[in-house]
Amino acid sequence: MPDIIQPRVLKGFRDFLPAAEMERAALLESLTSAFRSFGFVPIDTPVLEYAEILLGKAGGETEKQVYRFKDNGGRDVAMRFDLTVPFARFMAEHSGELYLPFKRYHMAKVWRGENTQRGRYREFMQCDFDIVGVDTAAADFDIVATIAAAMRALGVDGATISINHRGIFNRFLARVGIADKSVEVLRVVDKLDKIGSDETRRLLGELAGDAAAREILEFIRGGDDYQTTLDRMTRLAGGDNPDSARLAEIMAMAEACGLASSIMLAPNITRGLDYYTGVVFETFLDAIPQIGSVCSGGRYNDLASLYTTQRLPGVGASVGIDRLIAALESTGKTRKTAGYTRAVVINLDEALAADYQAAAQVLRQSGIACEVFPDARKAGQQLAYAEAKGASHALVRGTDEQARGVWILRELATRTNVEYADVGAIAAAMAQAR
Amino acid sequence: MPDIIQPRVLKGFRDFLPAAEMERAALLESLTSAFRSFGFVPIDTPVLEYAEILLGKAGGETEKQVYRFKDNGGRDVAMRFDLTVPFARFMAEHSGELYLPFKRYHMAKVWRGENTQRGRYREFMQCDFDIVGVDTAAADFDIVATIAAAMRALGVDGATISINHRGIFNRFLARVGIADKSVEVLRVVDKLDKIGSDETRRLLGELAGDAAAREILEFIRGGDDYQTTLDRMTRLAGGDNPDSARLAEIMAMAEACGLASSIMLAPNITRGLDYYTGVVFETFLDAIPQIGSVCSGGRYNDLASLYTTQRLPGVGASVGIDRLIAALESTGKTRKTAGYTRAVVINLDEALAADYQAAAQVLRQSGIACEVFPDARKAGQQLAYAEAKGASHALVRGTDEQARGVWILRELATRTNVEYADVGAIAAAMAQAR
Repeated sequence: MPDIIQPRVLKGFRDFLPAAEMERAALLESLTSAFRSFGFVPIDTPVLEYAEILLGKAGGETEKQVYRFKDNGGRDVAMRFDLTVPFARFMAEHSGELYLPFKRYHMAKVWRGENTQRGRYREFMQCDFDIVGVDTAAADFDIVATIAAAMRALGVDGATISINHRGIFNRFLARVGIADKSVEVLRVVDKLDKIGSDETRRLLGELAGDAAAREILEFIRGGDDYQTTLDRMTRLAGGDNPDSARLAEIMAMAEACGLASSIMLAPNITRGLDYYTGVVFETFLDAIPQIGSVCSGGRYNDLASLYTTQRLPGVGASVGIDRLIAALESTGKTRKTAGYTRAVVINLDEALAADYQAAAQVLRQSGIACEVFPDARKAGQQLAYAEAKGASHALVRGTDEQARGVWILRELATRTNVEYADVGAIAAAMAQAR
Repeated sequence: MPDIIQPRVLKGFRDFLPAAEMERAALLESLTSAFRSFGFVPIDTPVLEYAEILLGKAGGETEKQVYRFKDNGGRDVAMRFDLTVPFARFMAEHSGELYLPFKRYHMAKVWRGENTQRGRYREFMQCDFDIVGVDTAAADFDIVATIAAAMRALGVDGATISINHRGIFNRFLARVGIADKSVEVLRVVDKLDKIGSDETRRLLGELAGDAAAREILEFIRGGDDYQTTLDRMTRLAGGDNPDSARLAEIMAMAEACGLASSIMLAPNITRGLDYYTGVVFETFLDAIPQIGSVCSGGRYNDLASLYTTQRLPGVGASVGIDRLIAALESTGKTRKTAGYTRAVVINLDEALAADYQAAAQVLRQSGIACEVFPDARKAGQQLAYAEAKGASHALVRGTDEQARGVWILRELATRTNVEYADVGAIAAAMAQAR
């Protein structure tokens, strides 16, 4: 026995076998079609970048997780850990070559050397889409409408997009006199669903005093309809203001597009990240809200301030691909497919090899994905293969059928055979049955 | 002015701006549809693997080029430098979970820290497709037919697939008594097109003597039709043999599929890599053969012998994505697109914001990719944006049009405006015009 290297992947990494990869491909194709229908265009950036560029803004936790090393030329390089930082660098470098507002999507892998407990992977796919160069309600709504379209494209019937606006919360905090603690308060508020209202009240009380804590909890209380919640938030924030007006404009557009019922005003949602400055969104599937948000994002003041003095405001969101796949699987919404093959030509006799290939060619020319089993094994084995590949039909021709000038079309599910005089007729029948 | 980090990418790496990324996406989508029509299924493997696994078989040159480092857990890891080694590891690890014969495609990035002269990149995309688990003419032909279908899907009118069989050449070498020098002779022969026949003769003479060199040059001389060349090769190899029979079978299938004119028997093509053991192929575009092969491959005895004792014969090919894009560009075969957007709704008045969004929604529901310009800028700027995004039409409505209850559909190329009573009629007109 030769010396064998044990085949295995690194901890936190995984292979995608065909069933999983086809499922992921179908999901990405649905998202792509939604993005394209809204005029988003794709970009790509390198997996490896200068560590200085990727880590410019990153804190200690990110830095510990990143795959960073010296390349063969002695450069300090790192693998990207998200798609936001490379996009900021990209916009700083190329904004002169692009038209603004710039609508882009980017679906690609990122790497984090995270603790691999709880099903976290060290290699995973991200999918971001953004509109950069404007700060308007129309752009904010565009992201909301794109999220809704993406969910529809995926076959998700019920999805609710929770919206909030950081600015209104900040106005409210200023009114109650704790504007300087906004980051800390936001962090506590963001955990409301996780830690419960009692613990939230206690933490807020420590931060801001009991009276303010009570007002904060009143402010972030959800559950009412959009307008009622918006009115209460506006009142607690000190009255009419541009941020409240923004949320009203977004709702008006949603109503005009029949999306009002897909949107909820959720004053407790703030997104943990400090760089959001305007609207923020999260997306929950009505069937399984407990899985968490499958698409989140918000508006930021300035995308690329680390790399350019050009101010680039934007709004965007990120689809949680792995979470979404898990969610679709648990609600039976993925179409698991064994393969793309619709028909397998059974290989009964090497002497008919050219016949088999010609038949497959005819089917393919009619748009029917088809393969010739490449070895004259037992018919049972070949039929089992056809089923494993997800084919609906097999084409069968032995010397007898050839002598009689016919082909047999076998429907695999029902095991029924029908004779046809030629493959063109089979192609027509299968194209119709589709 | 704040402290700015200079935005730049590593040498040998590059961003893909939308035009380039859309071009690449269109190419990959065409290839994908060709692969699927033949029953190939996708897989994916990690970018990072144990260095021991990726470099098990690699020689000194590969090892020098690979991005290899210690991860935060002290593991000796490397970024993949091709898709073949990970596929071998994948098959050794998962063959029990897969059906054989296994037909897979894999399109993904790989990394090599190469000398970046001559337009070589350190990050580039590979696209491999293989059939593993059988050694038959039908499988060999399947790869040939898939290459032909892929070229058709890309809109390439003239492509010639050059085929050869290593086994016939080895038989010939055995007959003239220099079988022990087969690897060296193959390497010289493989360079014929680059170094010319005189230099080839000189090198072969050094290796094998002048008489053998003459016979080798007679053997590898091409230019005749398939059958004539095959007959000469067979004679020089000592007469009928299974490898010549294999090439005849492949041609019979090609004839049955109308592909005979796309195939050439090219006895000088051997592929430099030592692991090919049967048929080998290269693909040249008739319009620019000098760019070299855009799709190459061949048959191997045993894919995964490093990682398993299970014997896995296979046949496959690899599309040279970057070379193919360059070739399609130079022959005007790529459809350069500025974007997917077909219509832009011009934003003339913030008061009509909801109207604009509703109109865009109607168009999208008719399958027309559409965006609302997200800011009420000057109409000229917005129309310029619509053209930059590749849109054919703009929808225009100001307060006057709203008062009259109409929409204007502007054809951008001709600058003609037509009034419509509603957006549904515009959607119908645009759907028809498609």
